[in-house]
Amino acid sequence: MTQRIESVQNPRLKRTIRLRERKHRRAERRFLIDGLREIERADAAGVRFTEIFFDERLSSDRDVAATTAIERIVQNQPRAERLELAANAMDKLCFGDRNEGIVVAAELPETRLEEIRLPEGPAVVVVLDQVEKPGNLGAVCRSADAAGAVAVFGTGSGADFYHANAIRASLGTIFSLATAEAEAADLGDWLIQQGFRIVVARVEGASEFVRYRFAERTAIVLGSEADGVEAYWKQERFDAVRLPMLGIADSLNVSTTAAVLLYEALRQRSV
Amino acid sequence: MTQRIESVQNPRLKRTIRLRERKHRRAERRFLIDGLREIERADAAGVRFTEIFFDERLSSDRDVAATTAIERIVQNQPRAERLELAANAMDKLCFGDRNEGIVVAAELPETRLEEIRLPEGPAVVVVLDQVEKPGNLGAVCRSADAAGAVAVFGTGSGADFYHANAIRASLGTIFSLATAEAEAADLGDWLIQQGFRIVVARVEGASEFVRYRFAERTAIVLGSEADGVEAYWKQERFDAVRLPMLGIADSLNVSTTAAVLLYEALRQRSV
Repeated sequence: MTQRIESVQNPRLKRTIRLRERKHRRAERRFLIDGLREIERADAAGVRFTEIFFDERLSSDRDVAATTAIERIVQNQPRAERLELAANAMDKLCFGDRNEGIVVAAELPETRLEEIRLPEGPAVVVVLDQVEKPGNLGAVCRSADAAGAVAVFGTGSGADFYHANAIRASLGTIFSLATAEAEAADLGDWLIQQGFRIVVARVEGASEFVRYRFAERTAIVLGSEADGVEAYWKQERFDAVRLPMLGIADSLNVSTTAAVLLYEALRQRSV
Repeated sequence: MTQRIESVQNPRLKRTIRLRERKHRRAERRFLIDGLREIERADAAGVRFTEIFFDERLSSDRDVAATTAIERIVQNQPRAERLELAANAMDKLCFGDRNEGIVVAAELPETRLEEIRLPEGPAVVVVLDQVEKPGNLGAVCRSADAAGAVAVFGTGSGADFYHANAIRASLGTIFSLATAEAEAADLGDWLIQQGFRIVVARVEGASEFVRYRFAERTAIVLGSEADGVEAYWKQERFDAVRLPMLGIADSLNVSTTAAVLLYEALRQRSV
């Protein structure tokens, strides 16, 4: 049976909409996913949906591909409740003006360090220090996914990986990566324990990245464009690399820097 | 003498605001620049300003650095008329909710192919085929500037390099690059004549980019994320490279792909 929500005053709808705010995501350990592609990728990655919300308007004019995709998702998530929303209720639930006829609520993936399991052997992970803009977090996930990184960590002022803009900018690739938030020192210790060599992208880095030999297990640390990385990551025991900046600007977008370094690490492993 | 514009009905203000539209930029051969950093970079690159519009509200509370920067710009551009705008007039002129107290109108840089002069010797240029989103154009310019490319060309459906969002996403780096729009075939012929080897980024590219030897003079062609490049760029006489896509997504942002390829071409020249 599909339940139906008629009113924007519906208490359940209101509780669901609160998941747009980080504190409620943290308290309830749930989050929302918008966009059919992102929902498909979350489903494929094993994210567990608790509710699937459908727009009543779309049952008639959905195209075949979308219908098939949605049916597959419903089958894969038998424990998720299905709810049909009246137009005005759906408009409230959707993020911005994005409405693809479906929104899901899901269990928040594990984001505590001690629960993260990384593969043995060669591996690259990304650490984002004080990168606050969800769009940037998501764009880095997209670059990390493409270049075969296995995890993206957030340190410093909180990385909000499950913000709608982060998920969207990642195109859903965020669900294929391990993600965790931690204090810089805790993460640094943990990475070293796990056999990672830490290399920090810094404007004043000692070596140009093309002269640097990336270790088999490498953690690439990136700061915000404006402020760089915090003091912890500037210790001498960590390596520091720079990208040549040959033009008039003094920085690249953080997801671009991530991609250039990740593909260089990959190149070095493959030649 | 500084003129003053009081009313949003002022005909001169109205004519200026029309420059937000591409057809008027083309007809008048002028465009608008928002943002102090972008205006400074345009000034430094030799762009000629025709008018400098100041917000009346900012004369009192501007910080020292901004005041100094604005004074320098005024000195460098003696032929530009200065106009002070009343608050409501300035609000009309500003792009979106961005108001840094200054907007300038400037002569449109040359964007016809036959007027472009490229340096002799090693050089990399970027061709964007059917990349329509101004934000993407600008982001590619930022990557191209950083990696030392000398020009960015647009083919296919028009690349609007002087849209406010393109300038903004470029952080003003667009002014340090030659830019031109052309038909694909015209541009291809011209590049070959100028001694460039053409290499196209394609999902089905024959070689992984790390195995490809970039020529001393290289033109890197990139298409839109959704549709790739048009048929012209798929000819066998052009090279085609691909980036390994190791994750769940099948494409990178075009400015990210540009940066990865540009830095690899740079690496090959420097090792």
